[in-house]
Amino acid sequence: MPDHFQLLHQDSTSRARCGLLTTAHGPVQTPIFMPVGTNATVKAMRPADLREVGAQIILANTYHLYLRPGHRLVEQLGGLHRFMAWDGPILTDSGGFQVFSLAELRKITEEGVQFRSHIDGSSHLLTPELSIGIQQSLGADVIMCFDECPSADADRSYVERSLELTTRWARRSKQAHTRQDQLLFGIVQGGRFPELRQRSAAELQEIGFAGYALGGLSVGEEKPVMHAVMDACESQLPTDHPRYIMGIGTPEDLVEAVWRGYDMFDCVMPTRNARNGMLFTSQGRVNIKAKQYEEDQGPLDPNCSCQVCRTYSRAYLRHLYRSDEILSSILNTYHNIAYYLDLMSRMREAIQLNRFDQFRRDFFTQHTQSAVSHKEEYTC
Amino acid sequence: MPDHFQLLHQDSTSRARCGLLTTAHGPVQTPIFMPVGTNATVKAMRPADLREVGAQIILANTYHLYLRPGHRLVEQLGGLHRFMAWDGPILTDSGGFQVFSLAELRKITEEGVQFRSHIDGSSHLLTPELSIGIQQSLGADVIMCFDECPSADADRSYVERSLELTTRWARRSKQAHTRQDQLLFGIVQGGRFPELRQRSAAELQEIGFAGYALGGLSVGEEKPVMHAVMDACESQLPTDHPRYIMGIGTPEDLVEAVWRGYDMFDCVMPTRNARNGMLFTSQGRVNIKAKQYEEDQGPLDPNCSCQVCRTYSRAYLRHLYRSDEILSSILNTYHNIAYYLDLMSRMREAIQLNRFDQFRRDFFTQHTQSAVSHKEEYTC
Repeated sequence: MPDHFQLLHQDSTSRARCGLLTTAHGPVQTPIFMPVGTNATVKAMRPADLREVGAQIILANTYHLYLRPGHRLVEQLGGLHRFMAWDGPILTDSGGFQVFSLAELRKITEEGVQFRSHIDGSSHLLTPELSIGIQQSLGADVIMCFDECPSADADRSYVERSLELTTRWARRSKQAHTRQDQLLFGIVQGGRFPELRQRSAAELQEIGFAGYALGGLSVGEEKPVMHAVMDACESQLPTDHPRYIMGIGTPEDLVEAVWRGYDMFDCVMPTRNARNGMLFTSQGRVNIKAKQYEEDQGPLDPNCSCQVCRTYSRAYLRHLYRSDEILSSILNTYHNIAYYLDLMSRMREAIQLNRFDQFRRDFFTQHTQSAVSHKEEYTC
Repeated sequence: MPDHFQLLHQDSTSRARCGLLTTAHGPVQTPIFMPVGTNATVKAMRPADLREVGAQIILANTYHLYLRPGHRLVEQLGGLHRFMAWDGPILTDSGGFQVFSLAELRKITEEGVQFRSHIDGSSHLLTPELSIGIQQSLGADVIMCFDECPSADADRSYVERSLELTTRWARRSKQAHTRQDQLLFGIVQGGRFPELRQRSAAELQEIGFAGYALGGLSVGEEKPVMHAVMDACESQLPTDHPRYIMGIGTPEDLVEAVWRGYDMFDCVMPTRNARNGMLFTSQGRVNIKAKQYEEDQGPLDPNCSCQVCRTYSRAYLRHLYRSDEILSSILNTYHNIAYYLDLMSRMREAIQLNRFDQFRRDFFTQHTQSAVSHKEEYTC
């Protein structure tokens, strides 16, 4: 049993579990959702707001911070925690996914990925050694191996060669990792092919990491494919290490993933959708710009106890959105993150009470899926 | 002596004075600066933030709220205080200035102003009766007469006819005003002509208002002209009523106006400049996007005790601005309003100590005017 992760309770009705991840900046109760703070800020949230809504750990992006303001500058200014005035745990991803999704003129070689910056077109070579070096400069508590993330429609032979490359990069990432106050997680690849995923998971365990993540999900595949990959990996991953699914997801995705035994999640959805006026509530999605809320004096979510739901009417939130006011992004983001973190908290409680399977069934009964498709939500 | 305004202290070294304005939503210590909340929100600030930085009264815009979401809706939702969740005093302007500065195809008649909305081009006729009706629906604590605001270069005969119209509209505004929990202020016009200003001030006093405002300043005139108008009106206005200069100004403008015996001020400058990265500090203006702050670990203003200056480095604030992050607007606005309100607080203290003339001299010694001209600041 590693000393950074403690399995506190295994739900008796599902694979869901509660754990405690110990980091250099404090403990994290799992399962947990990590709000995304791409540029060293969770968009529209101050650190005090994050603490108010119960955030335990946040995520920041290696790719973005490497390009601007630069990891050397952040290091010189005392590291990421001090730079952004967040003294809780931080996880940085490796930049692998952003190179795949944002950068231009990408060229993948054994050495690494040559790409052009999406900000100024400048040319860069990101390698496993550089990715780990950047993450060590930033000083996050959990850092990720540099991986290749193939597209959802890549064929089997490409995905197989890609996962082999990701394994070799994982070995180089581990060798480059020297800061003992940072936990290094491996990233399982293998696309939509369960047997390739299992091979990737096995190879990473041979190298040995503090935790294991599933990369390359939610990139356009169907839900049954996503769930099959989750199942295949779960049976292969050690129970005594944290399991993280990167870039997931909708509230429904989180419930499904926790039910399947996963512990950590991040996604831009609550923050990005907030800025677009799509709000998550106990009664389903609310599109706050809709005419139906024009005279609505009620709170956004009558079952939510967050500051926004205690203070403002739907009519006011609609007015702010229509007037393109910054306060719209502030309040919507605050609520959406509060909703996500409250959902995780209720899931941890259900697990402790050995009633997670029932929790999941109730959740899907209450939450008739909104008309908005999964794909639209991820790309809005 | 009216019971809504109490002159607490007259500085012995200048015309500066301290007072207490009593409103239906609480007292306001003068001299005071009112942050501008155009669309029922001070941009990027929550009510809790406003309270934290010591805001006592805020301003909202009749023109904007009439067009969106509509004063009837705000009234139906319980009035402006409840709508925006601010339970402190609010002042609404009459829409006169916005019709002049924002609306299209403006046509002024005896009845009122016909204009097209800057939002959707719809046609509207704003009259003194409608302006007061809107302001009564919104329910602010201090409301303003509907006035005409001629441009800075209008000739004497135009300005004279305009002030006569403003006087007739002031009479109609007073007749339309029925809510006794709202204080109605008159607006002195008369452009850059001191004798016309004095005539306007005298005519308004004959009608009788709870306070007197100077409109149509800071619309492009030179500082000496602005100061001459302030002087001319001050000698004409009753000492036992609050005196408000609308749309003023820079920190330097505020010191000059308080020194001349004025009590209330509003301006978009601290909020708008914040969003453009221009910050007010005890050491002068800081353009936070400047390269010189790239590695600056120091606080924005070492003499400021606001949350932003206690928490973040100039390097981080620069990073947020360059990354176009919402948190940039949030933190910059918070600091700029804190700076303005702290300046007012220090002015009130200097008046109480009979040392305002010295305060003014010290202020201008410390604050060597920045390279940015007055005009640039107002229009940035």
